Amino acid sequence: MTHFDFIVKRLKELQEDICVQLETTDGQAFFSRDEWKHNDNGGGLTRVISNGNVFEKGGVNFSAVSSALPDFLKSKVNASSTQFSATGLSLVLHPKSPMVPIVHMNIRYFETNGGDSWFGGGIDLTPIYVDTAQATDFHRTLKQACDQHNPQYYADFKRWADEYFFLPNRNETRGIGGIFYDYLRPSNDDETIALTEFMFAVGNAFIPAYLPIVQANMHKSFNERHTDWQRIRRGRYVEFNLLYDRGTRFGLETAGRTESILMSLPPLASWHYNYLPEHDSEEERTLSYLKKGIEWVK
Amino acid sequence: MTHFDFIVKRLKELQEDICVQLETTDGQAFFSRDEWKHNDNGGGLTRVISNGNVFEKGGVNFSAVSSALPDFLKSKVNASSTQFSATGLSLVLHPKSPMVPIVHMNIRYFETNGGDSWFGGGIDLTPIYVDTAQATDFHRTLKQACDQHNPQYYADFKRWADEYFFLPNRNETRGIGGIFYDYLRPSNDDETIALTEFMFAVGNAFIPAYLPIVQANMHKSFNERHTDWQRIRRGRYVEFNLLYDRGTRFGLETAGRTESILMSLPPLASWHYNYLPEHDSEEERTLSYLKKGIEWVK
Repeated sequence: MTHFDFIVKRLKELQEDICVQLETTDGQAFFSRDEWKHNDNGGGLTRVISNGNVFEKGGVNFSAVSSALPDFLKSKVNASSTQFSATGLSLVLHPKSPMVPIVHMNIRYFETNGGDSWFGGGIDLTPIYVDTAQATDFHRTLKQACDQHNPQYYADFKRWADEYFFLPNRNETRGIGGIFYDYLRPSNDDETIALTEFMFAVGNAFIPAYLPIVQANMHKSFNERHTDWQRIRRGRYVEFNLLYDRGTRFGLETAGRTESILMSLPPLASWHYNYLPEHDSEEERTLSYLKKGIEWVK
Repeated sequence: MTHFDFIVKRLKELQEDICVQLETTDGQAFFSRDEWKHNDNGGGLTRVISNGNVFEKGGVNFSAVSSALPDFLKSKVNASSTQFSATGLSLVLHPKSPMVPIVHMNIRYFETNGGDSWFGGGIDLTPIYVDTAQATDFHRTLKQACDQHNPQYYADFKRWADEYFFLPNRNETRGIGGIFYDYLRPSNDDETIALTEFMFAVGNAFIPAYLPIVQANMHKSFNERHTDWQRIRRGRYVEFNLLYDRGTRFGLETAGRTESILMSLPPLASWHYNYLPEHDSEEERTLSYLKKGIEWVK
């Protein structure tokens, strides 16, 4: 078994595990299974939940593809590299209730036939209404996962998430951030093993980071005002994913499977011209937390 | 008065004229006026209609900006060019009824301090349900506007619209197309005058091309099934504008005014995983017309 195949196997197990735990919390809907092949260069398993008790729409997508190296990656790899293989697990959940945050997680591994390899990934939370205690809990769980591997990871990857999950057109972060990392290149086998372990530490942190927040909020009441605000925040989510997200662009530019890439888009989103929340409202308070550099864990 | 100022003046008049005619058709809502300056390098007048009888959301945006030439344009201009000025009128209308098509029009003029200048623009129609007779009428009106200026324009710019208003990720055109042109560079004063006349011929074709279609459809009944399909089509509109539209990217990359650029986004849009219309339905028939190369006017 190649190391690539080993990662594939563990990603599939993690996908199954995450789906089961989300279904249990939802209590109503189940993830469909859509196994696909795409353009003869790979395939995957897209699992989608819709119209659940908790999750209005969500997807957990595993993929493993191999193809000719696209032009925009040629500057990042050895001159002898002509083919790449990439595998990853990617999820986005859009809860029905505006009281439950949107979440995103992605872990991925990339290698070429010329000896390059790197790891990337991240988890970030997009509350419709920011609860500062919950934001701190979320970051603390991610920090613990990072700290076991490298004492510098959390600080570095938290800052990277602030930079990455940012909408310059709005001058706001997508949510309260989390961690993000990319192009972590192992220079020997020991580092490959260490980075693989870190990859799955991030993957395994998803459930403990997110589910307690879901459970704490899923029974809270909400009204149309909250839902309106949720649709506006979902609109910003769409803007980020289509305008700025590297994974979305990479997927579409390498002719990936559109439905699996765009499963991240929300079931219903809205745009109003020049919307401004009321002064001193909960909505305005949430906006005040959508900025870089907030230290959620001291 | 410079030629730039002349174009500015006529664009403002056209904006006023178009808004009045749309208001008359709507019969309920009026366009707000939002005059803005942006980053000391220009400004404009954004006019927005919302929650009308016919138009759920729409904007007609005039802008005139000057700024340092962005890097991505340097290959297109004379070496001595360091500053640009651009002015244009841009509109998108999202009708409430799924029976009334979405429409977009843009006309623009660009010049540099190094002697470059060019014209660009277009009009295209995005029906939620394609009516082939109306599609033909729409194209015929555009063809007549083109034919007065150059017998080759319609064929060339219709083909360009097919290429431009295309979503490679979906392998479908945004709607039934129209005309699109860019980088029309005059090489002397006569050509500048001719292209200016063409610019306003396109601008003046908007009302006769679109309003009859609105009036023919605005009283038709519709139900939730039609509205669901409308939201999905609007989702594709969002995908096009954020992933592929050059004007949107140009605006955001040159730090234009976000709200005026993204006024093109719909009031409510949805995404379902792997949505497929029913076999032999009106929705499926509409999809069959969302492709390049249909000759609407023989």
